[in-house]
Amino acid sequence: MNDLIYWEDVKVGERQRFGRYPVTREEIVEFARQFDPQPFHLDEAAAGASIFGGLIASGWHTGAMLMRMICDHAIPGAASTGAIGFDDLRWLRPVRPGDVLEVETLVTDTIESRSRNDVGTVKIQSRVLNQRGEDVMTLTSLVLYRRRPPA
Amino acid sequence: MNDLIYWEDVKVGERQRFGRYPVTREEIVEFARQFDPQPFHLDEAAAGASIFGGLIASGWHTGAMLMRMICDHAIPGAASTGAIGFDDLRWLRPVRPGDVLEVETLVTDTIESRSRNDVGTVKIQSRVLNQRGEDVMTLTSLVLYRRRPPA
Repeated sequence: MNDLIYWEDVKVGERQRFGRYPVTREEIVEFARQFDPQPFHLDEAAAGASIFGGLIASGWHTGAMLMRMICDHAIPGAASTGAIGFDDLRWLRPVRPGDVLEVETLVTDTIESRSRNDVGTVKIQSRVLNQRGEDVMTLTSLVLYRRRPPA
Repeated sequence: MNDLIYWEDVKVGERQRFGRYPVTREEIVEFARQFDPQPFHLDEAAAGASIFGGLIASGWHTGAMLMRMICDHAIPGAASTGAIGFDDLRWLRPVRPGDVLEVETLVTDTIESRSRNDVGTVKIQSRVLNQRGEDVMTLTSLVLYRRRPPA
């Protein structure tokens, strides 16, 4: 028995909504100290005086939180071998301590590989939403899926 | 005296090369545990048996390492107010423990804002290179810079 979702099983127009990522001040500051030490990611007072009016998460941290939700909810069961990359990433609204993020995905294209017959590409539009249903980040991912092996 | 680099000071064709980020097994695993817990980012044995043939960094971790090099070398002195997002991100080669990463940037466009006269956009192509000079990740960033205040 094999329940994996192969490239052939993915259909254009499929939507998924998943994830629940509570954003904490501690994690925002910890990530920023290591990877993005700008004042508005590190320090409440400096952030309050900035154009953001308060502490906000690094954009790369928001991407990492998206990845965690994808790992927990979307990758299990999928015969995917990882993303090639993505297009059109936009950070649309600040992510703040106390926010709770979730993800909505939409399959917009499935593309055969010209060079390999064992994989195909799936194009997925992803939105990261906050608890008010507002987009905080959007992007289009190009993900490789394995083709269904011959029966 | 004001030595900040404003939007007017950024010229198309400008190149910079900077950064030196040694990639460690410990950091790869730590990042993956928190944000991207897939076997080939977590465990040497599982990674050895995967298509990657050994432990590799999460793509989002590579992005975070790029951000750290940008914070340390490119943001100081720049009147930038953050990135809007980016386009055409591609993960081209695995990043492995022992690699040492650096960055090369090229300004490809400077665009006036249609809605705001205090900022402009700078389009920057970035390459993350390993110690063999191979591209491991490329992307195009859209960064807001403040306009030079009237004298």
